[in-house]
This record gives sequence, structure tokens and C-alpha cells, in this order.
Amino acid sequence: MQLAREYLTLLTSLRLKAPLVHNLTSAVVANFTANALLALGAAPAMVESPDEIPGFVSVAHALSVNLGSMTPVRNAAIALAVQAAQISGTPWVLDPVGAGGIPARTAFARHLLSQKPAAVRGNASEILALAGQSGFGRGVDSGRGSEQAIAAAQAVARQSGAVVAVTGVVDYVTDGVATLALEGGNAMMTQVTGMGCAASAIVAACVGVETDRLRAVAAGLSFVGIAGARAAKRAVGPGSLAVAYLDELAALNRPGGIADVDELRNAFPDR
Amino acid sequence: MQLAREYLTLLTSLRLKAPLVHNLTSAVVANFTANALLALGAAPAMVESPDEIPGFVSVAHALSVNLGSMTPVRNAAIALAVQAAQISGTPWVLDPVGAGGIPARTAFARHLLSQKPAAVRGNASEILALAGQSGFGRGVDSGRGSEQAIAAAQAVARQSGAVVAVTGVVDYVTDGVATLALEGGNAMMTQVTGMGCAASAIVAACVGVETDRLRAVAAGLSFVGIAGARAAKRAVGPGSLAVAYLDELAALNRPGGIADVDELRNAFPDR
Amino acid sequence: MQLAREYLTLLTSLRLKAPLVHNLTSAVVANFTANALLALGAAPAMVESPDEIPGFVSVAHALSVNLGSMTPVRNAAIALAVQAAQISGTPWVLDPVGAGGIPARTAFARHLLSQKPAAVRGNASEILALAGQSGFGRGVDSGRGSEQAIAAAQAVARQSGAVVAVTGVVDYVTDGVATLALEGGNAMMTQVTGMGCAASAIVAACVGVETDRLRAVAAGLSFVGIAGARAAKRAVGPGSLAVAYLDELAALNRPGGIADVDELRNAFPDR
Repeated sequence: MQLAREYLTLLTSLRLKAPLVHNLTSAVVANFTANALLALGAAPAMVESPDEIPGFVSVAHALSVNLGSMTPVRNAAIALAVQAAQISGTPWVLDPVGAGGIPARTAFARHLLSQKPAAVRGNASEILALAGQSGFGRGVDSGRGSEQAIAAAQAVARQSGAVVAVTGVVDYVTDGVATLALEGGNAMMTQVTGMGCAASAIVAACVGVETDRLRAVAAGLSFVGIAGARAAKRAVGPGSLAVAYLDELAALNRPGGIADVDELRNAFPDR
Repeated sequence: MQLAREYLTLLTSLRLKAPLVHNLTSAVVANFTANALLALGAAPAMVESPDEIPGFVSVAHALSVNLGSMTPVRNAAIALAVQAAQISGTPWVLDPVGAGGIPARTAFARHLLSQKPAAVRGNASEILALAGQSGFGRGVDSGRGSEQAIAAAQAVARQSGAVVAVTGVVDYVTDGVATLALEGGNAMMTQVTGMGCAASAIVAACVGVETDRLRAVAAGLSFVGIAGARAAKRAVGPGSLAVAYLDELAALNRPGGIADVDELRNAFPDR
Repeated sequence: MQLAREYLTLLTSLRLKAPLVHNLTSAVVANFTANALLALGAAPAMVESPDEIPGFVSVAHALSVNLGSMTPVRNAAIALAVQAAQISGTPWVLDPVGAGGIPARTAFARHLLSQKPAAVRGNASEILALAGQSGFGRGVDSGRGSEQAIAAAQAVARQSGAVVAVTGVVDYVTDGVATLALEGGNAMMTQVTGMGCAASAIVAACVGVETDRLRAVAAGLSFVGIAGARAAKRAVGPGSLAVAYLDELAALNRPGGIADVDELRNAFPDR
């Protein structure tokens, strides 16, 4: 599995610019998210203080807002960051974690959707919930296949002006008019916490360096899908998959990534 | 080292049900705990907001309460979650991290013990402290062997009605009448933060699918011990042990786990 | 790359004493920091509650204060911990994360510098900012080479009485009079979040067992540099580097660490 030439160009730009991506995310996944951004070539920040957020968001290249582990303090920090992003024109990405499963979170996610995110990334249940259709989410895992939320994603995109991605076995990315389908990844990725959250942060990094947002979101999910598929070749379980995924994000520019180098070694054991 | 047939049956049930395990735990270990639950086959959640806790606990299959990194806000969240668990009948597990080392934490742990946990898991110092005997804990590591806390565990079990596990080189599990001893694991596991916390969450997952609590707790610790022992075969230090542990949790249903496959490879290097 | 004999002696003392190192750090890096301390042979603690901090700091062998992810609550906890350390004589280490990039953080870092830290560890931008020179930091990464902050480090050391380390491709450690240069590490370490924070915690562990602070800080950074360089030999990317780093910290006392054992295996593939 190789990275398409157009996405390779975007990756090269991203690594030259090393976009500063500000993340408001759960403590559960903050470390993995930061490491995924660093491996890709972006510069993560996780500033959470109300005193620091507005200034930081205004200099960041992108903001990633994730609704995992909500608290009143976190909600206020997110509201402040989104407001700052609108003032400074910093593009921001919404990851509506748990929308559809927890009513208050669905409501907050819908409110945020009205605040002009550049992109939205969620699973089928979350995107269905944003579209006002009852989801079947149970926490963060999705009860439905991504193909069942394509129409909902298109509706959310048209309503909000955001590029919307619904991820699953196949990822769908839409601006409400054009809709792309992306294959890649591996089922084992669902056994690693924060894979979706890190994907949203990667999408934010891409939106921070590419103004064609449909292309930026598709590139970000392509990076996730290719690194995940390559990592699965080398992994023997979810622990080694998470490690290999970070390695493969860093090696995305190599044809075949690290997985191929290993295949080479196995093919020529004497070397 | 193989998984006993009775625990393999419980593992199969667990993977079919994928119990939703709600965790109130420290940010230090939240990622590892979530990944351990996912690898085992459970569905972790880490909801922390007072607005969301009662509703979430009532639909969860089990609750795991861990006293690492206490704050006034965390204490209140734990009290709320335990109250919700009692109302909804959600079984909950107490991990009295640091009891015996910090007086306020010992007091809070003893208070929680009176709130009808389904199970308690701690090291020798923590269980001794719960029993009202002065522990020798220094933070989270135990100054004593698990065998020195067997009587204390039995006393705590009889007093609280919980199944009590005291873990160490040998793990002891008791309902106050019967007491089981389980071998397994590896000393290197003490060099990975969150191993005990993740074990408590795994015990919670088992209590969420098996009403015979003595059996459920013993099964959970058996999963931990076998995955840990297999992981230690493949690890060269604590970093690779943590990764291999997650892999082996996911491979618990395979005879010998991943460790054996590797042995096979080493035995037949030409393949 | 081998550990110098004098640092090997300090490592042996450290493992015998297993110093309790109290950390006030960001949730992003708390897990990696705790695992690095455990791998080295220290005992980490991350107590955050105002009720527990003073008592805990007074029994700890060292305190590590890190300014990542500041909030008003975190600032107050840090002030409380530093005050407790001064009363009990617990040596403490300042990691001025983000100083130079965020004005309020620069001010807080300078205030803490006046509270008699035993040591300070930062990158060039952060140390320049502490010295009152405008840094070029963007979040936590440094826009300058460590050699450009040697004079600033010496000035900060003379002013504060702390041993000051500025880390980069070459690490410089100074008490304001003598200045040591240490090579080691690997550029790939900058792609792993928390490497600097964990280094500060390791320095704190060393300051907790060795009263010659210049020697203690140099030993700590030597541990980091050697483990990092050895890990880079075995890693294929930042994911496997982080894992190998923890393994190599635990294997620091072996000549050549685990990296050499692997070289041996590769050299004699039949064994």
C-alpha cells in the first residue's frame, strides 16, 4: 500500500511547515495524540488554561477539539478555544466523541457544529447523532458501519459548511457535494484507545497546511489508513500495533514504509 | 502456561458481551487501563463529569474505582459514581491505591469499603490498611509480601461482603470463607506503572459478566498473571513488557499465546 | 557507548535507595515519566491534591516540577509543593516547559526560579527566557541550539544557586563556575513527547540520592543520553524508540545495554 502522489506532496509540505496543532482532548489519549502528531511531523500543544488558550490558539496553525472526558471546566476551555479560533481564523476540527450516546454531549457537539469547524471526524453513530438521527453509540464505539452514515455526513456538511468524515472499515469524506471513499487501516486499530482521536488531530494538522479542505481531510485519513495497514503487517496484537503505527506515521514518505523493509529482511535472512 | 478451561469459558463470554467498564482512575494510568480493557475484549469508558456519571454508571456493566491521584473533585466524582452503582445495581471494584501510606486516603478507602463493592484488589500494604492494620506502603508499592495479608484480606471480605484480592508474587483471592492462591505474572511487571490499576479494571470487566464473584475475580487475576508471564518471555525490559502484555491479553484464548508462536519461530529459524 | 564508572556508582546507589520522586507534571507525559522513573529504579508518585501534597513532598527524596499544561489549580499545587519542599529540605528540580513562548508561563517560571530549586533543566529557548533574554520557543520545542544558551545557563545558575542544564544535541550542565558538556542521545528522541519531562524527573531522582548536585545532574543526563543512543540503535521509528528507551533505562548497568545483546544475536544468528 503506497501513499498517492498528491498526498505525498501534502506530507512534504506538512513536514516543512511543522504546523503547531493545539489539542483540547482527553487525558486518556493525550499522550498517544501528541506522539502521533510528532511522528507525522507536526508540533502538538495541549495548553488547557483559560489564561493561555486564546493567545495560543491565535498562533496555532490548527485546533483539534475532542469531546472525550467532558467536564464543566473542559467545556468552558473548548468554548474559549473555538471563539479564539474564529477570531484569529485558525481552522479547527471537531471530534464529537460520544455524541449519540450521552444526551448532554450530543447537544454540546451540535452547538459546536454551529461554530464553523473546518472539518468534523467521527464514527457512524456520532455523525448520525450530529445529523439529528438517533445513533446507537455506546460510549465511543460505533454500533453501525460507516456506509450507513454517508447521507448524514453529507447533510451535516451542507448544514455546517464543514468537510465531514465518517470513519470505519471504509472512510467517507464529503463537503456535501463531492464524496470520497478511502480504504485502508485494519480492524485491530479499534483495540487501541485514541486511534480515532489521533486521526482527528492528524486531520487538523493537514487542515493547517492545505486550504483545500476536502483534500486536506482525505490526505489526513489516508495517512492514518496507510500507517495503520502497514503497522498491522508488523504487529502481533494491539500493543505492538500502537507502537508500529507511530513508527509507520514517521515512515509514511518511504515507499512501503517500515513494513516493507521488514519484509525485505525476512526475505533475505542472511543479510 | 495455559489458561484453565473454566477461565477460558469466562473469557469467551466476556468477548461476546464486551462489557462496558466505567473507570474512575488516575490520568497517569488511564491510557494503559483503557488499552488493557480493549485488548481483553471489554469496552472502556472514562467519563468524569458529574453531569454524565450517574447516567453512564447506570448503563455500564461494571465500575472500577481507583484512588490514584486523588483530588477533591475526583473524590466527589467517585462518591457520585458509587452511589449511582448502588442504585442501578452495577457491580463495582475498589482499588485502594496508596491506602496505608497517606492517612486521608486510608480513611476514604475505608469509607468506600462500607459502600458494598463487589470486589477489592490491592497489594499487601493496602489490604492491611483496609483491615485497620498499619501498612508499610510508600505510595503505591508494597513493603510486604502478599502472603502476609491473607488474614487481613479474609477479615476485610467478611466485614464488607466483597471478594478481596491481595496481589503480589502469589495472588490470593478470598470471599472470607474460601481462599484461592494464583501463581503467574513476573517481577518485571512492577516496573510498569498502572499494572495493578489495569488488573483492577480487568477484574471489574469479569465481575460485569460473571455473577459468581469469587470465580470472576480469580479469572481476572488469572488473565493478568498469564498475559504477564507470557509477555515476560518476549520482553527485554519494562518498555517492551508493557507492549507485549497488551498483545498477550488479546491472545489469551490461544494456547501459549503469542509467546509460543515466537518460540516456534526460534525453534525453526528457517521458516 | 558505555556508562562512565562514576555514574555507574551513582546508578547503583539510586537502585539501592529507590528514591521516591514526587512529580507535578502534565497529564500528557505523566505515564511516560512514571515509567521512565520505574525503569531507572526510582519510585514515582504523582499526588496532586492540596490535602496530600505537603505531607507527601516532605517524605519524598526529590520533587520534579514541570510547567506543561498549566492551569490555575496546577499553579497553586506547584506553589504548595515548592513551599513544602523548602520547609522539609526536599531537593526540587524545575522544568520550565514553554517559558519564552507564553508570557504568563515565563513569569511563573522566573518566580519559581527564586524559590531555590536544586536544579533546572530546559531547552535553549527556555533557559534563555529564564535569563531574561527573549527566547524563540514555540510551545515546547526549541528554536535554538543548546550551545547558544551556555552563557544564559551560567547566569541563571549564578543568580539562582541551582545547577542548570540546557539540553539539545549536546547537553551543558553548569553550577555557574564549572560547565560540563555531555554528548549522547539521538535526534529521533525529539519525536517522542515527554522525553524532556522524563529527563527532568530522572535528574530529580539523581538529586535525591547524590548531594553533589553538579555530579547528580550530569549523571541523570548521562543516563538519558546513553539510554537514548542505545534505544535508537534498536528502534525503527519514534514508537519503538520510546519502548526501547524504557528497556535501556532498565538495562543501563549492563555494558552496552540491550542494544549490544541484540548486536550479539545478529552477529551469531545460529545461536
